[in-house]
Amino acid sequence: MLRIITQQAEAQAEIKRICDRTSDEQIVHKEATVREILATVKRQGDKALLHYTAEFDGQQLNGEELRVSGSELDAAYQQISKELLDAIGLAKRNIEAFHQQRVPKSWVNFGQDNIVLGKKYTPVDKAGLYVPGGRACYPSTVLMNAIPAKVAGVERIVMVTPPGQDKTINPAVLVAAQEAGVEEIYRVGGAQAIAALAFGTETIPKVDVISGPGNIYVTLAKKLVYGTVGIDSLAGPSEVLIIADRSANPVHVAADMLAQAEHDPMAAAILITDDESLADRVQTEVERQLRYHTRKLLTEKAIANYGLIIVVDTLVTAAQLSNEFAPEHLELEIREPWEFLEHIRHAGAIFLGKSTPEAVGDYLAGPNHTLPTSGAARYASALGVETFMKHSSLIEYSPEALQKVAGAINILTQAEGLPSHGDSVKFRTQPESID
Amino acid sequence: MLRIITQQAEAQAEIKRICDRTSDEQIVHKEATVREILATVKRQGDKALLHYTAEFDGQQLNGEELRVSGSELDAAYQQISKELLDAIGLAKRNIEAFHQQRVPKSWVNFGQDNIVLGKKYTPVDKAGLYVPGGRACYPSTVLMNAIPAKVAGVERIVMVTPPGQDKTINPAVLVAAQEAGVEEIYRVGGAQAIAALAFGTETIPKVDVISGPGNIYVTLAKKLVYGTVGIDSLAGPSEVLIIADRSANPVHVAADMLAQAEHDPMAAAILITDDESLADRVQTEVERQLRYHTRKLLTEKAIANYGLIIVVDTLVTAAQLSNEFAPEHLELEIREPWEFLEHIRHAGAIFLGKSTPEAVGDYLAGPNHTLPTSGAARYASALGVETFMKHSSLIEYSPEALQKVAGAINILTQAEGLPSHGDSVKFRTQPESID
Repeated sequence: MLRIITQQAEAQAEIKRICDRTSDEQIVHKEATVREILATVKRQGDKALLHYTAEFDGQQLNGEELRVSGSELDAAYQQISKELLDAIGLAKRNIEAFHQQRVPKSWVNFGQDNIVLGKKYTPVDKAGLYVPGGRACYPSTVLMNAIPAKVAGVERIVMVTPPGQDKTINPAVLVAAQEAGVEEIYRVGGAQAIAALAFGTETIPKVDVISGPGNIYVTLAKKLVYGTVGIDSLAGPSEVLIIADRSANPVHVAADMLAQAEHDPMAAAILITDDESLADRVQTEVERQLRYHTRKLLTEKAIANYGLIIVVDTLVTAAQLSNEFAPEHLELEIREPWEFLEHIRHAGAIFLGKSTPEAVGDYLAGPNHTLPTSGAARYASALGVETFMKHSSLIEYSPEALQKVAGAINILTQAEGLPSHGDSVKFRTQPESID
Repeated sequence: MLRIITQQAEAQAEIKRICDRTSDEQIVHKEATVREILATVKRQGDKALLHYTAEFDGQQLNGEELRVSGSELDAAYQQISKELLDAIGLAKRNIEAFHQQRVPKSWVNFGQDNIVLGKKYTPVDKAGLYVPGGRACYPSTVLMNAIPAKVAGVERIVMVTPPGQDKTINPAVLVAAQEAGVEEIYRVGGAQAIAALAFGTETIPKVDVISGPGNIYVTLAKKLVYGTVGIDSLAGPSEVLIIADRSANPVHVAADMLAQAEHDPMAAAILITDDESLADRVQTEVERQLRYHTRKLLTEKAIANYGLIIVVDTLVTAAQLSNEFAPEHLELEIREPWEFLEHIRHAGAIFLGKSTPEAVGDYLAGPNHTLPTSGAARYASALGVETFMKHSSLIEYSPEALQKVAGAINILTQAEGLPSHGDSVKFRTQPESID
C-alpha cells in the first residue's frame, strides 16, 4: 500500500531517505570486485572479456563472436514489426531535431589592440555507448545515447551490450543502433565492457568518452575509469516526483507513478499534492492498476519501499520539498505549470501540464532521457551533444597588447613566485632584459 | 640537459610516457588514506578537520579559528602593494568579461500542435572552491574559480585553503577572493577540506560543486566524492606543448618551457619543431636560463624527467604528435597559426603566435586557466560558467499532440515490456481504456 504522510518533518526525512537510497556501504563492498575486473581486462584483453561473459552472462563466446556480425545486423530488421521500425524512426527524428539545435559553434571575438579570444569546439574521436541487457531491453536508450554522439560529429561510435540467451542481442536494440548510425557493436556487458572501452583490447578500441546507464557494477566501473576516459554521469535508479493539484486526474497520476516503479525495485515514485482527496484516490488507483500488472512483484516492491504520497498545505511547500529531492523527472500536473516554474530550482527534466506524461519524454519528445539521478540534478544536467564535444580556448595577443599588460603580469608572477612566467613576457617586451 | 630526439617511434613512446606520468599504482596506494580521511570527517565533522590540520599542516586551530575573520580579510588589503591590487583588478575585469559572454540562457521552442520544448538554466545553490597553499600561493587560481561561479549566479561561494605558518593565509589570496566577491573562507586544506565541502560539518556547509586544483590527495578525494557532489575535473600536473618553426625566438621558447617546468617537478614541457637549429638553440638557452633560476632544483627535475625536444620533418607531424598528447596548453609559435588550427584536434587552450606566451592566459587574458591535463583534453574542456550551472529540460505536450504520438509510444513500451508507460499515455488518449 502506497503510504500517505502529512507531517512536514516526516516528509523531509522520507525525501532524504529516498534520495539517499543507494547507500555508500554496498558500493565500497562491490568496488573491490570491480577493481579486479578492470585490472584483469587491462592486463588480459579479449581473453578476460570472454572469461567474464561466460561467468556472468553464462554465454561461451569465441573471439570472433565478440563483434556482432553484419548478417546479424541485417537479420534484426526481419525480426521486428513494421510498426516498431516506424516508431523508432519517429523517435529518432525528434531526438535528432532537438539535439541538432544545441550543437555549440566555435567563435572568436576581436578586441582592442588586436587581441583575439575564442573557443574552438571539436567532437571527441571515439565514443563508447553502454546499453544494458537482461531484463531491460531498451532501444530508446540506444537512440538517446547514439544520436547525440552522431550529431556531435563523433567519427567512431562503439556500442557494447551483454549477450542474452543463445548469445543473441535483442533485435530492436540492433535496429535502433543502425537507425542511429551505429554499426560497431560488441557482445559484452558489465564492468568488463567498461574496462574494454576505457583501456582497449585486441578487438575493442579504447574510446574517449563512455556514456549510458547500467547496474551498480557498470556505474562503479565508470566512476573508477573516470579520468582515464570521460563519462556522461553516474546513473542511479530512476525516479519521478509529481506535483499535482485538485485538477489532476488520479488515474493518470497513478499510471505515471507506476511507470517509474516498474523499471526497478529501487525506483522511486513520489506524489506531492495539496489535495487530500487526490492523495486518497491515487492511493486506491495505484492498488487497482497493480492488480494485473505484468511486472507486479518488482513494481510492488518499489512502491512499498520508495513510493510515497505527501500532502502539503500549499504548492510552494511542494516545490521546496521537490528542490530538496532534486528529482530526475518532475511532473507538474497542476493548473498553471509555467507560472509555477519559478519555484523549481533542481530537476533533470520537467513535464508541464496534464497531457505530458513522462513516457513522452522517455521515448520521443526529443530531449534526452539520460538524466541526473539521486539528487545529482542539484549540479548536473541531461546528457547532450556536449557530452561528446569539448572546446579549446583560443588566445592571441599582439606585440602592442602584450606590452600593455606586461607590467601587471610581472607583478602577479612575483606575487606567485614564478620567475620564468615573468621572463616569458619580459623577454618579449623588453628585449634588452635578455642578458 | 633537455633531450632532443628525432626518431618518430621514440617520439611517440616518449609522448605516451609523459602523458601517463601520473601512474595508477601510486594512486591506488594513497586511496586508502584518503578514504579514511573522508569517512572520519563525515563522522566527526569539525573535530576531524582540526585533527588533520594539526597533523598535516602543523597548525593547532580551535573551532572558531577555522573561518577566516572579517578583520583578517580587511587586514589583507594593507599587506599587499597598490600595484598588486591593481593587477588583480585588471585580471578580474578581463576574466569577468570573458565569462559573462558565455552564460547560457534559458530558451523554449514552440512546435506543431502546441508542443513546447526547452531548457531552463539555473546556477547551483552552493559552490566550494579549493585553493592550494604551501609552496603554491596562487591568487590567480582564486580568480579563475571564483569569478565563473559568481558570474553563474551562485548565491553561496565557500572557499577553503590550508593555513600556512602561524595559521595565516596569504594576503594576496585573501584579497583576490574578496575582489571576486568571496568572503566565506575556511582555513583547511587537503582531502579533509574536500570532505568538509562534500558532506558538510558544523562549521562548513555541504556544497553542490567543488572546483579547484590540488595535490594528489585533494584530487583523489574529489574523485571519491564525485557523485555525492559535482566536481570540475581531476587536475594532474601542468604541461605545455610548443609547436615552433624557424621563425620562433629560442629565448622566448625556452622561457615558456621553463615557465611550465617551474610549477612542479611533475610538470611537462615539450617542444616540437621542424627546425633542427632552433632545437639546439632552445636546448642551450634552457640551460642558460636555468643557471640562476630561483626555483632551480625543482625546475631542473621537471626538465630532466618530463622536458623534451622533438625534431620532425613537417609541422603536420608535429600536430599529430600534439594530438596524441592532447596538451593542457598548446603554443603555436609559427608563421601562420590560424591556418594551422585545422590540424589541432585536442588541446585545453591554444596560444597563437609569437606574442602570446602562456603566462598571458595564466593570469589575465580572460579565458580560464583551469584546463584538462594528462590527456583529458581528448574529452574535457576548461572550467567555465557552466561548471556552476545546470539545465532542466522542459517538455509540454497538448492533448492533440499526445494523441498523435500515442500509437508510436504504445509500440515502443510494448517492445520494452513496460506496461504502465503505455497506460500513462493510453489512459489520457483513450479514456474508455480505463476499466
